Amino acid sequence: MPETVSFLVDPLPVGTSAEFLESSFREIEPGSPALAVNDLAPHRGDGVFETLAIVDGRVNDLEPHLARLANSARLTDLPEPNLDQWRLVIRRAAERAPADGQFSVKIVVSRGVDPGTVPTGWAHVASVPDFSRERSHGIRVVTLDRGIDRGAGERAPWLLLGAKTLSYAPNMAAIREAKRRGVDDAVFVSSDGFVLEGPTSNVLVRLGDVVVTPPPAAGILHGTTQRRVFAFLESLGRRVAYRDLTLDELRGADAAWLVSSVRMAAPVIEVDGHPLGADAAMTAEINDHLLGAND
Amino acid sequence: MPETVSFLVDPLPVGTSAEFLESSFREIEPGSPALAVNDLAPHRGDGVFETLAIVDGRVNDLEPHLARLANSARLTDLPEPNLDQWRLVIRRAAERAPADGQFSVKIVVSRGVDPGTVPTGWAHVASVPDFSRERSHGIRVVTLDRGIDRGAGERAPWLLLGAKTLSYAPNMAAIREAKRRGVDDAVFVSSDGFVLEGPTSNVLVRLGDVVVTPPPAAGILHGTTQRRVFAFLESLGRRVAYRDLTLDELRGADAAWLVSSVRMAAPVIEVDGHPLGADAAMTAEINDHLLGAND
Repeated sequence: MPETVSFLVDPLPVGTSAEFLESSFREIEPGSPALAVNDLAPHRGDGVFETLAIVDGRVNDLEPHLARLANSARLTDLPEPNLDQWRLVIRRAAERAPADGQFSVKIVVSRGVDPGTVPTGWAHVASVPDFSRERSHGIRVVTLDRGIDRGAGERAPWLLLGAKTLSYAPNMAAIREAKRRGVDDAVFVSSDGFVLEGPTSNVLVRLGDVVVTPPPAAGILHGTTQRRVFAFLESLGRRVAYRDLTLDELRGADAAWLVSSVRMAAPVIEVDGHPLGADAAMTAEINDHLLGAND
Repeated sequence: MPETVSFLVDPLPVGTSAEFLESSFREIEPGSPALAVNDLAPHRGDGVFETLAIVDGRVNDLEPHLARLANSARLTDLPEPNLDQWRLVIRRAAERAPADGQFSVKIVVSRGVDPGTVPTGWAHVASVPDFSRERSHGIRVVTLDRGIDRGAGERAPWLLLGAKTLSYAPNMAAIREAKRRGVDDAVFVSSDGFVLEGPTSNVLVRLGDVVVTPPPAAGILHGTTQRRVFAFLESLGRRVAYRDLTLDELRGADAAWLVSSVRMAAPVIEVDGHPLGADAAMTAEINDHLLGAND
């Protein structure tokens, strides 16, 4: 198994006959030249993506990720992706990953070479850092102002706050800012004082016996992992809720997690320098579930 | 002259001996595979760029664009670009453009292949649509909420509002939204009612005998073309000012322009359906100046 595996994909229209799916993508040498410099992905961060975990050869949350890819494409006026094609690409990518261990596969639909009339696509499998320490010992975070108020997502859909686009430079800058402040990650807070999301994660907070996350309408990405955790907790008879969360509620929470597809549930042990209570039992329960088979 | 010209560039550290500059980049077939799919430019829109106009073989505003590239790199924690190298790349790119007509050259510094320890770079020359009609007849715009308030740029530098990053998906979505509403372009307005910038331009407004633009500290990109227009107007003894501009001031302006490197000064003839006064004389004067030699 090479360190990475890459596929170039010609995104097909919806409804293309199944016989053409297998020949619509091909493996390429990892790190090899693949994209034109005037493809709108490198040109303008103009495309959508999903990152899925591959655990011991199994793909996590395949259908929710595909559904979100389709939603991101809709929000960015890209052609509707052929999900049969992407399902097959992801399956082939997972087959190329080793049978043991954790990997990620990122799938991308770019608007294509400027002026963007024909989408381009690719998939990329990479090994994943060992996040077991973050999952067990937790992470320290700072809250960072996201500039927008809580209503911006609904008011201004052109900001694409609910779409998973390639334009992640501010997200990456926020993580660098967190590391500069000596902690592990960031939590974005709206200009009117509400918890939004992490730069690459959703925020879950336990307040008493209910686990809360901010509503997607608040201008955040609706997390596949967050949804899976909610479904899991509900299956155990626990209470979950989407509702606005203030910064004070996060700081005073009984427990909190940043959840994402690859790192899974990282318990938050410190917010802005204030220690936070941990719930080791629930953390283990959630991560055991997330690391288990589910596709 | 092909329709486009592309160069791949190995960004050099500052202080590299001049003898290595010429061999640090090479022309590639336009549209050919050039970038790895896990380069952080297509991966995350994580890089910085400049777009310069080439008019009849001459490069416009070379030094202001290079200075802004360096500033964008600083704001995004990229290595300081070697401006001697980029000056040479741009000169070579301009030499490959025809001696007559208008072209653009985009230069890009990406954070490089994941995890981004070695930057990648490229330059791309393209022909430019004929904007003479926009410059003479003007454009119609709608104002769109930018979600942020006017103070976000200074309060939250991790939003990178003052850096010209590749993460332009929301900017492109705003232009699509404007076209969906039947007009040509958009003007972003802060959530507290102040004019910010266009998705790919700066806003200039004439109020009586003074030409006003919002201050860069308001969370906008400090425009090279805006600065050149201000210097030109000042050289004629006209008054110019950086100051906060309300939406009402834009709608009631004596004249307004969206200015950018390639389209130059496009007079705004309608804002949100309300016609705006034109200043054909000043428009012609500004565009004659912008289209003239200046490097």
